[in-house]
Amino acid sequence: MNHDTICALATANGVGALGIIRVSGNKAFEIVNRCFEGKNLSKAESHTVHYGFIKDGDEQIDEVMVSVFKAPRTFTTENSVEISFHGSPHIAKKILEVLIKNGARMAKAGEFTMRAFMNGRIDLSQAEAIADVIASENEASRKVALNQLKGGISNEISELRGDLLNFTSLVELELDFAEEDVEFADRTAMKMLLDSLETKLSALIDSFQYGNAIKNGVDVAIIGKPNAGKSTLLNALLKEERAIVSDIAGTTRDTIEEILHIKGTAFRFIDTAGIRETTDEIEAIGVQKAKEKIATAKILLYLYDEFDSRPQEVIDFVKEFYREDLKIILLHNKIDINGSLENEFDQQLAETLVPVYTTTLLPISAKDQTGIEALKTELIHYVENLKQDESNVIITNQRHYEALQKSLESVTRVKSAISQSFHTELLAYELRYALEHLGEISGEFTNDEVLGNIFSKFCIGK
Amino acid sequence: MNHDTICALATANGVGALGIIRVSGNKAFEIVNRCFEGKNLSKAESHTVHYGFIKDGDEQIDEVMVSVFKAPRTFTTENSVEISFHGSPHIAKKILEVLIKNGARMAKAGEFTMRAFMNGRIDLSQAEAIADVIASENEASRKVALNQLKGGISNEISELRGDLLNFTSLVELELDFAEEDVEFADRTAMKMLLDSLETKLSALIDSFQYGNAIKNGVDVAIIGKPNAGKSTLLNALLKEERAIVSDIAGTTRDTIEEILHIKGTAFRFIDTAGIRETTDEIEAIGVQKAKEKIATAKILLYLYDEFDSRPQEVIDFVKEFYREDLKIILLHNKIDINGSLENEFDQQLAETLVPVYTTTLLPISAKDQTGIEALKTELIHYVENLKQDESNVIITNQRHYEALQKSLESVTRVKSAISQSFHTELLAYELRYALEHLGEISGEFTNDEVLGNIFSKFCIGK
Repeated sequence: MNHDTICALATANGVGALGIIRVSGNKAFEIVNRCFEGKNLSKAESHTVHYGFIKDGDEQIDEVMVSVFKAPRTFTTENSVEISFHGSPHIAKKILEVLIKNGARMAKAGEFTMRAFMNGRIDLSQAEAIADVIASENEASRKVALNQLKGGISNEISELRGDLLNFTSLVELELDFAEEDVEFADRTAMKMLLDSLETKLSALIDSFQYGNAIKNGVDVAIIGKPNAGKSTLLNALLKEERAIVSDIAGTTRDTIEEILHIKGTAFRFIDTAGIRETTDEIEAIGVQKAKEKIATAKILLYLYDEFDSRPQEVIDFVKEFYREDLKIILLHNKIDINGSLENEFDQQLAETLVPVYTTTLLPISAKDQTGIEALKTELIHYVENLKQDESNVIITNQRHYEALQKSLESVTRVKSAISQSFHTELLAYELRYALEHLGEISGEFTNDEVLGNIFSKFCIGK
Repeated sequence: MNHDTICALATANGVGALGIIRVSGNKAFEIVNRCFEGKNLSKAESHTVHYGFIKDGDEQIDEVMVSVFKAPRTFTTENSVEISFHGSPHIAKKILEVLIKNGARMAKAGEFTMRAFMNGRIDLSQAEAIADVIASENEASRKVALNQLKGGISNEISELRGDLLNFTSLVELELDFAEEDVEFADRTAMKMLLDSLETKLSALIDSFQYGNAIKNGVDVAIIGKPNAGKSTLLNALLKEERAIVSDIAGTTRDTIEEILHIKGTAFRFIDTAGIRETTDEIEAIGVQKAKEKIATAKILLYLYDEFDSRPQEVIDFVKEFYREDLKIILLHNKIDINGSLENEFDQQLAETLVPVYTTTLLPISAKDQTGIEALKTELIHYVENLKQDESNVIITNQRHYEALQKSLESVTRVKSAISQSFHTELLAYELRYALEHLGEISGEFTNDEVLGNIFSKFCIGK
């Protein structure tokens, strides 16, 4: 284990009223004491804050407040110091230089969190959750990340591991007495336990579709002719959101206008204009790109109106692009002009499409903002329908998803081995696999490459 | 005095490992307690840090560390709380929303510092110094700002005010007995005191030229023909600097390539290409702009070489642009080609120019980096020559500069009034002026408009 003392800027880059530099390691107090004009930090109580100056030799660098955290009740479990200084990037640089001069070294990306993990304060899924909490841009992703940070996944995994371990110890006991051909474990009870494991693992795996949507957002392709009202629709959707965001000054605002957060989920609206306009070669490329975007989208909004479209066009489009995992919403726009919601156009669509294709038909007026709430409700329904069960634990991490899948495969193989009365040795082998894959999630079984991968994505200072 | 409770993000905008939200006011503990799952902050010791969760009702928003600072030993002298959260802008927004919901309000720009001033913990020059420390981008400006923050200017001003006050009370005593035509104050001693005041005020005023250079940097105009080697020179100058900056990761880097910090002073290199190329109308505009830039520059670097220039060109140029407050450095570039430092070209320049115009002549090779250190030394000399005396206190603030000038004018008028034996009433009148102008610097005499001006330039959170 690494016990040298590391330091880094922990707050966002740039000018602020305050900046925080974090120091952690065996010699944290000793090193900071050497450049701190103020209380002897080694003699300070843990979790106390002290006024003073950071010095470079005799030269005062800045007036600071220094917080002292004594091992093991700290983020890294090591002695730690947080230096709160006047938030100038120049001063941050100077203080880091002074700390390094006095024996600390710059932390690598994610090294504070890695130490918290290596020193056993949190498991690997919690370490990953810290990055997720920091990166969370909306309520849904924040909630899931915070739950993971608080050990939501860890507890679930540890329960599953407990079940598997009980099971495994029975099987391995049999193995020890293999020559005597004894059967210690009750095969029926074993099968019940495996069924329950399978159910739990599947539920977690299934939650990834929802978890991925709330963590990474949902791609929504918008299609429609140039005058179909796409940008009016986008503005109508974004309008309210903007107002909410600007309520609180002093916080960063989304500048990517095409992302809309509805009830805590990010919807990414992708313009796929030009899909029906294949007159020359260049436009054909545009069509190809639009098709690719539709292929990766989860939701497709098709904007049409009775003035510029014919029902057959819409029907042909749906037939061409229908997929089981694509929610198609047909938006009959400009209803403010005609006003009639019961019209032949939509009648024709409903008759032709509904029996065969799952589509939703919504009358809207992007201009008058009619139907916008109904559209938002549809978008939210899509996300909520991804929730598979009432479990609080939701998988948002690709790595966890893959480990759970591998674990499930092993459990399924164990089940089939039992039903076919395979040798106990094989059971034990598969069970070890299932356990190892679960252990990957919590970091019990891991290797430097995996860890390097995970923590290199962190920023320095985390 | 305002005693409602204010809150704001105190760290830089953007994603970081940590963010800090500051809360200050009578009800700081009460408000944070309402949304903090953890220790009762009202019962916590001052300067202690507590683990817990910020909640919105029952919903946990983030795992946080909360620091408690009890009045009056705080930045604002009010009860204060600092909430350290996982540095997501979304979470910052949520926590601010929750604090506002529970009775706090968003702080205005500079409001924390304004409270520190209004509550008498710091004077106005120290409040201004906080903004300067945060904005400091190099060693020189950091040092001066820190000295001002620590009360450097306050002490100097208070000393001057002390002298003036003694003097004034004598004069006003005379005024009380005016009808009796008594002269209490010793006129010679008075004049000596005024001389000393004049000297001290002048020294402070003179320090502004230096203070302004280190706070706002020094504009350096570079002139030379297209192939004179301007960009090679700039690269040669910037090269070393870049290496130093990138030594320490995790700090912000200057992206404006034209600013070079040498020994803690910022030099802004301004390209004034095209000054000699007046062939058409458009180029004439370029020439006009170049001339304007030279007019505001403090230093001018003229790049020439013996291959593309004639001595008379250089001489004509110097004659045209020479000013007393412009340091002209003639750079004989490309000495690597010819190698001879003693040449006819420079001989001619030296003979014609040196007797009349103060210019410096430096042989360099931008390509080989020859002479670059000598050039840097020249630049630094310029700044160091601006230092007028050995005083530690340096004026960097335009407002202070103007107040000191007005104060000096009054003192000078008092002196002249005494020598002309004017009526004591006039003395008292001028003395009050001198005192008021000094009082403007510390904020003793001020008004809402001035304060509004000063603090509106702060960021929210300061």
